[in-house]
Formats: sequence, C-alpha cells, structure tokens
Amino acid sequence: MERILIKEIIGKVGEKVKIAGWVDVRRDHGKLIFIDLRDRSGKIQMVVLPNHKEAHDIAQELRGEWVIEVEGIVNARPEKMINLDIETGKVEIEVEEIKILGKAKELPFEPGAEINIDTYLDYMPLTLRGEKQKAVFKVQANIVKAFRDFLTEQNFMEIQVPKIIGEDAEGGASVFDVEYFGKKAHLAQSPQFYKQIMVGVFERVFAVGNVYRAEKHSTTRHLNEYTSMDFEFGFIKDHRDVMDMLSGSLDAIMTRLREACQKEFDLLGAEIPEVPEKVPFYKLKEAQEIIKKKFGEDCVGEPDLEPQHERWLSEYAKKEHGSDFVYITHYPVEKRPMYTYEDEKDPGFTKSFDLLFRGVELVSGGQRINDYEALVESMEKKGLNPEQFAFYLQAFKYGMPPEGGAGMGLERLTAKLLNLDNVKEAALFPREMNRIDVLLSK
Amino acid sequence: MERILIKEIIGKVGEKVKIAGWVDVRRDHGKLIFIDLRDRSGKIQMVVLPNHKEAHDIAQELRGEWVIEVEGIVNARPEKMINLDIETGKVEIEVEEIKILGKAKELPFEPGAEINIDTYLDYMPLTLRGEKQKAVFKVQANIVKAFRDFLTEQNFMEIQVPKIIGEDAEGGASVFDVEYFGKKAHLAQSPQFYKQIMVGVFERVFAVGNVYRAEKHSTTRHLNEYTSMDFEFGFIKDHRDVMDMLSGSLDAIMTRLREACQKEFDLLGAEIPEVPEKVPFYKLKEAQEIIKKKFGEDCVGEPDLEPQHERWLSEYAKKEHGSDFVYITHYPVEKRPMYTYEDEKDPGFTKSFDLLFRGVELVSGGQRINDYEALVESMEKKGLNPEQFAFYLQAFKYGMPPEGGAGMGLERLTAKLLNLDNVKEAALFPREMNRIDVLLSK
Repeated sequence: MERILIKEIIGKVGEKVKIAGWVDVRRDHGKLIFIDLRDRSGKIQMVVLPNHKEAHDIAQELRGEWVIEVEGIVNARPEKMINLDIETGKVEIEVEEIKILGKAKELPFEPGAEINIDTYLDYMPLTLRGEKQKAVFKVQANIVKAFRDFLTEQNFMEIQVPKIIGEDAEGGASVFDVEYFGKKAHLAQSPQFYKQIMVGVFERVFAVGNVYRAEKHSTTRHLNEYTSMDFEFGFIKDHRDVMDMLSGSLDAIMTRLREACQKEFDLLGAEIPEVPEKVPFYKLKEAQEIIKKKFGEDCVGEPDLEPQHERWLSEYAKKEHGSDFVYITHYPVEKRPMYTYEDEKDPGFTKSFDLLFRGVELVSGGQRINDYEALVESMEKKGLNPEQFAFYLQAFKYGMPPEGGAGMGLERLTAKLLNLDNVKEAALFPREMNRIDVLLSK
Repeated sequence: MERILIKEIIGKVGEKVKIAGWVDVRRDHGKLIFIDLRDRSGKIQMVVLPNHKEAHDIAQELRGEWVIEVEGIVNARPEKMINLDIETGKVEIEVEEIKILGKAKELPFEPGAEINIDTYLDYMPLTLRGEKQKAVFKVQANIVKAFRDFLTEQNFMEIQVPKIIGEDAEGGASVFDVEYFGKKAHLAQSPQFYKQIMVGVFERVFAVGNVYRAEKHSTTRHLNEYTSMDFEFGFIKDHRDVMDMLSGSLDAIMTRLREACQKEFDLLGAEIPEVPEKVPFYKLKEAQEIIKKKFGEDCVGEPDLEPQHERWLSEYAKKEHGSDFVYITHYPVEKRPMYTYEDEKDPGFTKSFDLLFRGVELVSGGQRINDYEALVESMEKKGLNPEQFAFYLQAFKYGMPPEGGAGMGLERLTAKLLNLDNVKEAALFPREMNRIDVLLSK
C-alpha cells in the first residue's frame, strides 16, 4: 500500500489508507487513544481502539514528534465531533496498524507554548515545525519564486555570482573578512558589481543569493547574513524605468501570494497589499515638505530620512493614495554610492530611489553611471582609487548602455508582509553577533 | 518610437524601426559603412549611406563595443548578399539616425581572437560577451530553472540557508575561516545539515546556493566557490528513492534544455544526453568486478574509485546500456560522512551513491541516518564530538523520518554537458587560489 498525504484523505470515507507523519498531540483516554498526526499537507485526528491490540500497545508508547506510519480506515466523524478549524475536521482515522519510523526524546517545552525569541532560536530544528513558522517560510519560498518567474518572463537571465570578493569591496567597516590562502578576502555586501558587469553581457539579469553585513548592532531590523533579490537592466530611460520594473515584480509577488498563500496570511493575521497601477513617488525634498506641512517637523534640506520620517511618509501615502508603497527619489549625491547617476536637471541629487513599505525602507535602487570617465571621476570624488576597481570598470570601459537596477532584502519583505516583530523570525537560522545557531562562547 | 529587439526585425521589411545594442563589427568602405549590431536577441547587419550625413559622421567614429541606438528602414538583402548563418541574414537596416548611448575604449584584442584561459579571466567583463560564453550561461540559467521547477512540482519547498557556520563545520582542512566579531566562523561546504533539519519541517526541501572549498590545488575540475543544487526528503524507503528523484530532476533538466537551448548546444558542438527510464546502477564491488573483467585492472576491494575507474565505468554504461549516466552505490562506511546510512543487509557498506556522468562524479547522495542514537554513535565512531553538533542533532532528537538527498555542482554539470575543458569556463567569476577576479598579489 502506498502512503497518501493527509489532505488526500478527505472524501475517502470508508476506505483503508496508509499515511505517515509526526505525532502532533496524543491524548490517552485509557481504552481510546487519540493521536493528531501531522504531515506536510495537514493534520488528521486518529483514534486507536483496544481491539487492535498491537497498534494500541504502540500508541501507548508514542509521544510528541515521534514519526509513524499508520494504516487505518477513514470514518466520518459524528456530527457533534466535527471540527471545522481543520481541513480534515469531518473525518478521522480508525487506526489498524502503526509502525514507528523515528523516535523522539521528551520535548523541552509543550508544542505551542509561549517562548521568547532566544528559546525559539536555540531550538529551531524543533520550533520551525510550528504552524506559524511553516507559514512564514512557505510565504518566503513563494516570494522568491514569483520574483524569479516575473523577471524570467521579462526576459531577464538568472546569474550565479560569487560572494568571496577581493579588495574592491563596496563598504568599509561592515565587511566580513575571509582568510583566503594566506591573503585577506571579504564577503560580498551585494551582487552590485557583478550584476552591472552582466548587463554588458545579457542586458537584463537577476540574482538571488546570500549577502553579508558585519554590523555590530543587533536590532529587530538587521541580519548579518541575508538573502538579496537583485535585478539590473540596460537601455533604460532613467530611474523611473527601474521603479516600474520593481513595482511590476512586487505586483507579481502579491498576485502569487494571493493565489498560493492566502491561508498562511489568514493564519498570521496579515494582509496581502495591493500594488497600485502607479506607486506614488516624491523627490526627497518634496517628501520633506510634506512632513513639515502634515506632521509639523522641519527636516527640509536634510540629506536623508530618519525612521520616523519614513513612517510618516508611509502613513501619508496610505491616506492620500491608498498605497502601502511609496517611492522617495533624488537623494543627494553624497549619501549614495559612487555608481549612482546624478540628475542633470537637479544637480547634486541622484536618479536613485528608496521604496518605503509600511513605514520602512524595503528596496534601494536607481540609475547607475554608465560612462567610464564619469564613473572614474565619481570614484575619485568619493576618495576611492579607481585602480582598485579596475576589473569592475572594464564593463564601462568596453561599452555599457544606460542602466539601473534594485536590490531587495527577502527577509525584511517577508517580515513586513507578515507583521513579524523581528526580522530574525523571517530568516532560517539567522546569524547575529552572538549567535551562529548556538550562542557563541565569550 | 519604442525600441524593438533585433530578432523582431525579421518580417518588418519596408518598415522603420528603432533598435539598440553593441557595435559587434564595423567595416568602413568609405562611402558605405557596415555595422553589425548586437543585442540580447541576436545580430543584424546595418548599412550607413553618405546621404544620411549626420549618421554617417557618427558611424565613422564608432568602434567595437560602443553602445548605440539606431533608427532606420528594414530592407530585404539582395539575393547574393543573403547570409544564412545568422537569423536576420535576409534583411539589413538602412540607417537614418544614430545616437551614442555608451562609448568604449580600444579593445585589448580582436573579438573572437584565440585567447588563453588567463586572458579570458582577466577580461571577463568583456570576454563574457562572446557568443559561446553567453551560450554557456544561458544553458546554466536553464539548468537551475528546470531543477527548481521539477522539485517544486514534486512538492518540495525552497529554502534559503546560511553560509556562515560555526564549529560544526563538516570538513577539516578545506574550510575557509571567517573573522566573526572577534571569533572564528567558517564558510559552509554544503547546505547538508540545514536541509536535513528542514526535512523535519517541510518533509521535502531544496536549496540552490553558493558553497565553499578551501582546496589548495587548482585543477580543471575544482572551484573554491561554486553553486550547489541540493534536495532532501523524508519518508523514503531507501537510497533508491533518492536516485529516482535525482534521475527525475536530470530528465526534467535535459527536457528543458532541448526545448530552450538546442541552438546553444549546436553552437558549442555538444549533445544533450537522454536520461534513461532506469539509470543503470552497480554496487561498488560489482563495479570493481566489471573493471577487472572488462578493463583488466584489479581494484576489487578498494574503498573508492580512481578517476580512471570512473571513466571506464561510464564507458561501460554507455556501451552496455546506451546511458551517459551510471550510479555506483554501497561505498564503505569509512569513506562516507558520519550521517550516511549503513545497509543492514550489507554491513560495512552504505546506502549511498555517486552518479557518474561522462566519466566524472557529478552527484553524491544517499539515505541518511535518521535515528538519534545511531547518529550519535556514528559520530563517535568517526572520532567526532556529538556535543559540537548539538544543534543539528536536535532534528533527530525530536523525530525524523527515514530520509535522504543529494547535492550536485551546477558548474560541473554545465561544463560536462557542454564539453568545456575547464570548469572555470562554467562559472561566472571563478575563484581560485591565486585569483579573485584579478590575480592576487604575492
């Protein structure tokens, strides 16, 4: 007999089936033993009667998280025993045979018990099995898939890029060092240079992969290792083409989540946002004027937005445009990386953007400098040595169209979509200063 | 006027179009200037006549790899000028306007010139633009997509796992060290532990991501950073379920390549293999008997296969079964990692396999130990300290079904499929001992 999935049981009343999974809960009523069994498709209540002696003996031994294979008959539940909270709530299994596939030790806490974040992290191989945790990472898998599928449809090529990088690391203090055959290498903070280089090859590329920030502060917003979803493409008019492509990818993500993950959002009490046809956008200066006028704080002329400003602007966009998303463009040259394109019509300000989503910055992007001489000059202005970037610079030395792109943190998007308090709950095995799976010894 | 792609020109004879791309070749015949333009979709011949003075002046300035936007009329080529070697060979563009989007410096060598691997690597932002190089990485993108799509259909969940790991690194000498906030961390050699942990959560998972080997030797088969395509799933009978799933994924890959990349295989003079309904498989001992009988070398009883043995076995499988693939199973316990499942019916030997493809090992996999006590015991036998693996061990302590999986190097598969001499040609920006993009200073 072949194993079937628990969700396939519905409609098989009267039939004999074989299922397998984890013991979710076991209630011993002496003669009757009830077992809730869990597999990847759902849960089912099973009952073991004393007349199946062998199965009954085994059932007495079972505890939470034991893995078993069961043969039994699917019965309709009596009317008053129907449980509409679970999909299989109208049926139960009368167990005839049980085979133990994997034993479990006593659990450190009751399933579903309130635990703090540290205990959650200490016991991830166990705590990730919770209904809500599975929902989070199912949503995450669907986000990535939708992102890739959308860009593939838009004629983007997927690329695999290295994460060990040399002296041309983008940042300074927040870069991890790697011992590389007696020399020092680094871990990439983004696939930025490689995706730009590859625009020269394929015009349109995307990459999904791990990136690294050696940030010493441990907040609910930051991870030391996370997944970046990046795209980059050529022959754009300006940064607005990049914003449109990004909005398109977000719309594709939300559409897929509505199709594949509505149940998970319901479980987590979260809402899937609409991406408006045209996401509202403001220049930084305009945004600061709005803050001054609507929220009474004068930050006009400051080079960047504070977290509170981002929250206000999200609030404003929601109220005025019904949008959970809002673009802020034209950050000043000095606040953006050396490859950022300066707006000829607005000198000192760049054709760059941040996308705010529900009060936080979700994505950064913009048009890049594609002229070799201009890029070298920009490096020099930032106090960087172009020779150190000679490899990257080749892409521009040998002909690059106007191009741009964006990069989005997968875990942050997941967390904000699902209203998770801490981005660590949206990362499998999050890395932090004092923890790599286990707390690091002092 | 909106830009169209070059391949869209075919059939637009007599129409005015706008296209954009890189100058592939420019031939100046004085009055007539011919330009082959290249975009992501293909190439087209364009001619600039002196009557379009402005365009003609610009065309005189153009050199290889300049990026331009062109407006012009699509003309049918005269019969004797038809070039059947390129898709657009029956038409050409009569240029009316040219706009320069990006200039290029003089190229370090002629496009298509024979260059050695070091020059190829030194100039990757340029050399990757070659027809053959683009074909390689298009094939690679399609392999990854087919792998993911197949496993998603088979109900596997994609997971994103960390690459910074702690003291429970799998290997010894060949692990890269990372400076982690004053402590020492490592780069993962595989997602092995995390995918196994996640079987406890989702039953079926896959991961595609970068992995690291600090191997000091630089060969045509090894990379220090590469892309591993991994899957792992529970409720298996034994390693043969894993082999079947792997064969299924390879079949899906080859099917997609036939649909999407036949042209690229033709260009590279390579053949897309068939994956037989049932890929032949031999126990290591049987394979060694075959070698003795058919090739005259007595390696019976040795714990592993030498490269020459792998080539012979591939030759044998091709001749006897018409298969480019052959599984070798039942490697001895001492040659396999501590999590490998020992065959009760063949003590001392494991339910593990290697998949050989065209003479080299392409994939390793097998059934894993899912019983906690057995896994602890296996660690101890291998001289490992179970306490060091306490986090990973939780997955088994709290209930794990019989499970197994496999991991496949994307670059090696790409290289073998396309008959590339060196696996470095199948990696974007390959890392080697003495090179991270540029040669490392001594």
